[in-house]
Amino acid sequence: MSDKGPDRSGPFWDAIEGRAAMPPVAQLLGWQLEEIDPGRGTIVVRYEGRPEFANPLGDIQGGLLAAMLDDTMGPALVATLPPGQFAATLEMKVSYLAPAQVGPLWGHGRVVKRGGTISFVEADLVDGDGVIVARATATVRVISLPASPS
Amino acid sequence: MSDKGPDRSGPFWDAIEGRAAMPPVAQLLGWQLEEIDPGRGTIVVRYEGRPEFANPLGDIQGGLLAAMLDDTMGPALVATLPPGQFAATLEMKVSYLAPAQVGPLWGHGRVVKRGGTISFVEADLVDGDGVIVARATATVRVISLPASPS
Repeated sequence: MSDKGPDRSGPFWDAIEGRAAMPPVAQLLGWQLEEIDPGRGTIVVRYEGRPEFANPLGDIQGGLLAAMLDDTMGPALVATLPPGQFAATLEMKVSYLAPAQVGPLWGHGRVVKRGGTISFVEADLVDGDGVIVARATATVRVISLPASPS
Repeated sequence: MSDKGPDRSGPFWDAIEGRAAMPPVAQLLGWQLEEIDPGRGTIVVRYEGRPEFANPLGDIQGGLLAAMLDDTMGPALVATLPPGQFAATLEMKVSYLAPAQVGPLWGHGRVVKRGGTISFVEADLVDGDGVIVARATATVRVISLPASPS
């Protein structure tokens, strides 16, 4: 957490800093922030590849790996946005490089280009041996959040 | 279930016909077969978009939609394979067309081309109002399964 700027509000920072519950899907995936640098647009997230995510071969199903990559790329961008804005993924492409065993995985995400409306992000998913098991790119649209009910 | 050929064995048919447990990820996603036609390479699968799959906006996270699309495209192909073969996804591209609410979703999958080693598959994910919320294409490699422990 190298950036301590004043703008740490909005849903992402509220969840990270304990002012709001983590989103359900983050809980499902065992999402844990390890590093973030909003200035550079980079993030490292730890995931727990649970037995419930396994395909018939006992490896983590590719869609669940996509879910981890999505939940790495989105926050890499959202952490750079002002409060009241969020990221909606338009399209995502995932390459599966190696089977992923049940156990911890690490998402390394990066904002490739942040535009006014459209941004490009990418992420690698790495296992405990340092093997990249999957890699993704995504195109994301920045949207304005509805005012929170309070 | 329009095809009643003799070759309904192997992990896919064992699970469908109750001789083996459903894979963990299928249970997580609420996977239920509604229609399958191995001759045409088509499948319709019902999913349950659970509250645990929601992103901070309350919609189903895009990665979980990818998991449903992956679990539609894979079986569309696997159902056409002889026993002892399985499908490993090499790459998948997902387009997100509309937000997906928590609730049931239907995956409509299709084998576009079945090759000896590489096959191409695609799927739509449709909500209860008939809206296509996401669409995917994937490139899949057919692999030989290790002999099962018995």
